Amino acid sequence: MWILRVNMTDRSLKLEEVPEKYQQLGGRGLTSTIIYDEVDPQCHPLGPYNKLVFAPGLLSGTVAPSSSRLSVGGKSPLTGGIKESNVGSGYAPALAKLGLKAIIVEGHPEEAGKYWMLHLTWDGEKPHAEFLPADEYVGRDLYKVFPKLYTRFGKKVHVAGIGVAGELKYKNSGVAFDDMKQKPTRYSGRGGLGAVMGSKGLKFIVVDSTGAPAVTFANEALFKQGAKKLREALGEHALTKPKGGLNTYGTAVLVNIINEAGAFPTRNFRDGRFEGAAKISGETIFEANKKRMGKEIYNHACSPGCVIQCSGTLYDEQGEEIVSCIEYESDWALGADCGIDDLDAIGKMVYLCNAYGLDTIETGVAIGVAMDSGLLPFGDAKGAIKLIKKMGKGTPIGRILGGGAALVGEAFGNPRVPAVKGQAMPAYEPRAIKGIGVTYATSTMGADHTAGYTIAPEIAGTGGKVDPLLADASKAELSRAFQKTTAALDSTGHCLFISFAILDIPSGFEGLVEEINGMLGTNFTGDEIVSLGGEILKRERAFNEGAGFTNLDDRLPEFMKYEKLPPHNVVADVTDEIMDKVYGDL
Amino acid sequence: MWILRVNMTDRSLKLEEVPEKYQQLGGRGLTSTIIYDEVDPQCHPLGPYNKLVFAPGLLSGTVAPSSSRLSVGGKSPLTGGIKESNVGSGYAPALAKLGLKAIIVEGHPEEAGKYWMLHLTWDGEKPHAEFLPADEYVGRDLYKVFPKLYTRFGKKVHVAGIGVAGELKYKNSGVAFDDMKQKPTRYSGRGGLGAVMGSKGLKFIVVDSTGAPAVTFANEALFKQGAKKLREALGEHALTKPKGGLNTYGTAVLVNIINEAGAFPTRNFRDGRFEGAAKISGETIFEANKKRMGKEIYNHACSPGCVIQCSGTLYDEQGEEIVSCIEYESDWALGADCGIDDLDAIGKMVYLCNAYGLDTIETGVAIGVAMDSGLLPFGDAKGAIKLIKKMGKGTPIGRILGGGAALVGEAFGNPRVPAVKGQAMPAYEPRAIKGIGVTYATSTMGADHTAGYTIAPEIAGTGGKVDPLLADASKAELSRAFQKTTAALDSTGHCLFISFAILDIPSGFEGLVEEINGMLGTNFTGDEIVSLGGEILKRERAFNEGAGFTNLDDRLPEFMKYEKLPPHNVVADVTDEIMDKVYGDL
Repeated sequence: MWILRVNMTDRSLKLEEVPEKYQQLGGRGLTSTIIYDEVDPQCHPLGPYNKLVFAPGLLSGTVAPSSSRLSVGGKSPLTGGIKESNVGSGYAPALAKLGLKAIIVEGHPEEAGKYWMLHLTWDGEKPHAEFLPADEYVGRDLYKVFPKLYTRFGKKVHVAGIGVAGELKYKNSGVAFDDMKQKPTRYSGRGGLGAVMGSKGLKFIVVDSTGAPAVTFANEALFKQGAKKLREALGEHALTKPKGGLNTYGTAVLVNIINEAGAFPTRNFRDGRFEGAAKISGETIFEANKKRMGKEIYNHACSPGCVIQCSGTLYDEQGEEIVSCIEYESDWALGADCGIDDLDAIGKMVYLCNAYGLDTIETGVAIGVAMDSGLLPFGDAKGAIKLIKKMGKGTPIGRILGGGAALVGEAFGNPRVPAVKGQAMPAYEPRAIKGIGVTYATSTMGADHTAGYTIAPEIAGTGGKVDPLLADASKAELSRAFQKTTAALDSTGHCLFISFAILDIPSGFEGLVEEINGMLGTNFTGDEIVSLGGEILKRERAFNEGAGFTNLDDRLPEFMKYEKLPPHNVVADVTDEIMDKVYGDL
Repeated sequence: MWILRVNMTDRSLKLEEVPEKYQQLGGRGLTSTIIYDEVDPQCHPLGPYNKLVFAPGLLSGTVAPSSSRLSVGGKSPLTGGIKESNVGSGYAPALAKLGLKAIIVEGHPEEAGKYWMLHLTWDGEKPHAEFLPADEYVGRDLYKVFPKLYTRFGKKVHVAGIGVAGELKYKNSGVAFDDMKQKPTRYSGRGGLGAVMGSKGLKFIVVDSTGAPAVTFANEALFKQGAKKLREALGEHALTKPKGGLNTYGTAVLVNIINEAGAFPTRNFRDGRFEGAAKISGETIFEANKKRMGKEIYNHACSPGCVIQCSGTLYDEQGEEIVSCIEYESDWALGADCGIDDLDAIGKMVYLCNAYGLDTIETGVAIGVAMDSGLLPFGDAKGAIKLIKKMGKGTPIGRILGGGAALVGEAFGNPRVPAVKGQAMPAYEPRAIKGIGVTYATSTMGADHTAGYTIAPEIAGTGGKVDPLLADASKAELSRAFQKTTAALDSTGHCLFISFAILDIPSGFEGLVEEINGMLGTNFTGDEIVSLGGEILKRERAFNEGAGFTNLDDRLPEFMKYEKLPPHNVVADVTDEIMDKVYGDL
């Protein structure tokens, strides 16, 4: 197993043996550890001393179900802290097959505006990498560029790269990856890592694992036994089974649920219920597609080997694809948060975000703050589409929005910015679901639902049932437990959505533990694996402290403390002491 | 003596007796103490819980020479920390005569976009205040609005207010005050306090001290003796005497001196020498005026009672005023830092900043960063003027620039932002003058030369002579000593420029001490007064810590640590340990 070190200062490449201390790490555990070990936390995220790390999950490239997630890490231009943003794509398995535990991109090009790409192949014994000029792909729609790459490098490659958002160094720019149809729709979206890649003059890393050997195991039988248990658990659980909640309605199944809970942030977090929710719900998407396509359309996998298959496509009246995929978060951010209930317009906006390389959450919330600041009225779908096009062009207003929700608030002098550590909140109102608010406030990542998804017990009743409006110290414990488990899960390559099955079905969790021990030849207990997640959080936290963060950064925005959120008329009332317990007791 | 409390939520007014603990405080000492006592350091600067405090210096309104400075304080939208920004104007003496030690503006209007003004008069026994609608003055050039106020309220009033920059809530917006010709050219410029005033819906505070009694003293004889000594010292010193350095060439006398020292930041801090320096120097301004006006024009006072009289006017070929005043900082920021050597264009830009209510330093550096980011070429004076006009209109690019240099860097993804704690650096390169770099890095105010003007010994040889390139621990001591003395001076109402005379002429310092003791009836020694400055710094520091700042915020920008500055080819090399000694040993 190797680490590929890519130096953009002199365009040199170095294939290094994986050091002992990294051998049991993968995914987030590895990206965060490398960033902690190698990056000065006080460096400018877009300067020469930041690094960008790609690492497949520990189990990626195997038959472990839903395990094709790749972690991308670096110092975030959006938050100023450590960032791990993960993505489901064929990319992680391809890197794993090449024996690459990580790619570390470092240095800084002397010539600004010049772009390069990297082509990775298997040379019979080890991975081989080559630099190629990439200027011809610069400034263009990724939907148009990806086919050119497939024509040039063959149908079997996988692509990681940036769109114009990353070239323009937007703090709201993701790293794009290919989906199962080889379109640029899978994203390491959050935290502006596209801008880090752009600042290094790196446009694409194209990976071709043809001829590379299969991933090997310390104990293959144990691994296979574990993978089977987990696959069965996923096949059983109501949310993850075929034609279950996620496979039928996608993540947007949450629209009606969260709206009903009064926690569906509407018009820049002015309301917890959206009168147009029913028009943009997962059920409505399913019914619209059924009507437009003349048959029931179930969702598809984001990556090879996924059994949950929650990625939805939205079709238009003519049966043409508007966009794939349309997730709960995108649907909400570009919909309810902007007061928009026009599903096709939302689909169009998601398409534009994919074309330019923008994070849909940050984009929607940024537009919501702009609407809240009087730039255009809430509900103006045409205006919102125009704004996203301006983001693609790099006009001044495009740059303001490209800077993310917090930058919009600063440019317009609007204190109503729903963000923590500079990162926009996702689609759960922290005033109405207290545990997720604790996660938003305390996560090393900025406001991030995936960092500790307490929605499972607070709303879905998975892994127990907890009152979402309860604001006591138990919420610190709940968030901490989810944050630790998540950090561990994010290191395996497994999708976060296996949580439902491993929380509710004991053999599912057993399977996960066996997979890991089978891969590594270890004897970890479940608790030990969760503790390893805690170790990752400690490293991330230490990086953030080095970058200047204190417990005062672990707070929800002030306006949520004095503005009551309808319909429950609640404020952010989890105390500072409770917030500080999350990491204080880690 | 009273404090006037102005509540913008319900537009109520309250005249309060000055509490015991505030009786010996004035100026910065009072604004910073009130902010420390009353403002939650974690509040949003533009939200309902910030306050804006106006306080005349302790000696303002007396015959103490050059003592008409007013402090404006609040939590800064630009830095996120405490801010005191002071201004020379007839405003401070007028408040002092009304017996007002401070005006505290608090609360938040419910109706956005509606503006009010306050009219203060003397009712025979005490100050009287009245709210009046101010919407008719909104969105307009302050040069056009000020005359209307003088027509309406009489020639004897003084005005504090905001221009469109404050209305637009720019982080780069000052509070404007009247000069001796009743034009809006005196500014509490730094730190965005105009936006705080704008966020509270307060457009102007018009002060009329007609009929108010004179300021009284505990020991008038002692005070008068001190004022005389200080006046004599100012009249003797080469820099401050009539037709001396500052009275002849204004602060722009520094252009050639700092350029010669290789510390004149040029083209967004890419060079320490500007080939066009001679074209924009104080000497050139003097000669241009002489030629254009047919006689030697000496500078004028910014405020009543100033004996230094350093404010310069720039006239055009027809003998018409282009702008008053043209300071070293403005001349440099809108000139050299943008690669512009066209004096008349610079004068025009200063005029526009006054018209809109912008800080000239922040504006120039913001444009410099925009040039550095490729928006327009360095040296493009016409382009720069157009950009400032866009700032006045609130277009998207205007808003980016109105957010200050740091926001421009974020919007354009440019790490080359010469700022500390979000505030743009003034006209001394910290790589080439190490002591001022320590002040920039550690000041509670963000990068601010006036917070601890070590240029005096490092360049001017005032109060001793120190090697500017020396980067050892003595620079921490030097900066600390200047920061403490400055905090004390900023509380008296005296202009910082009395420093030259009190550093070099012992009787001058003696005079200052006697003035203070004569005013208060105290027996402070000089050392005790400096220590009181240290107490003010501690309060400011505590506020900033409460706002989330740590010693990691006391650092120069990273790019200065790896980019060598010509002509000395020096980097920022004062160690973190030395930076931490400044406040560590306070």
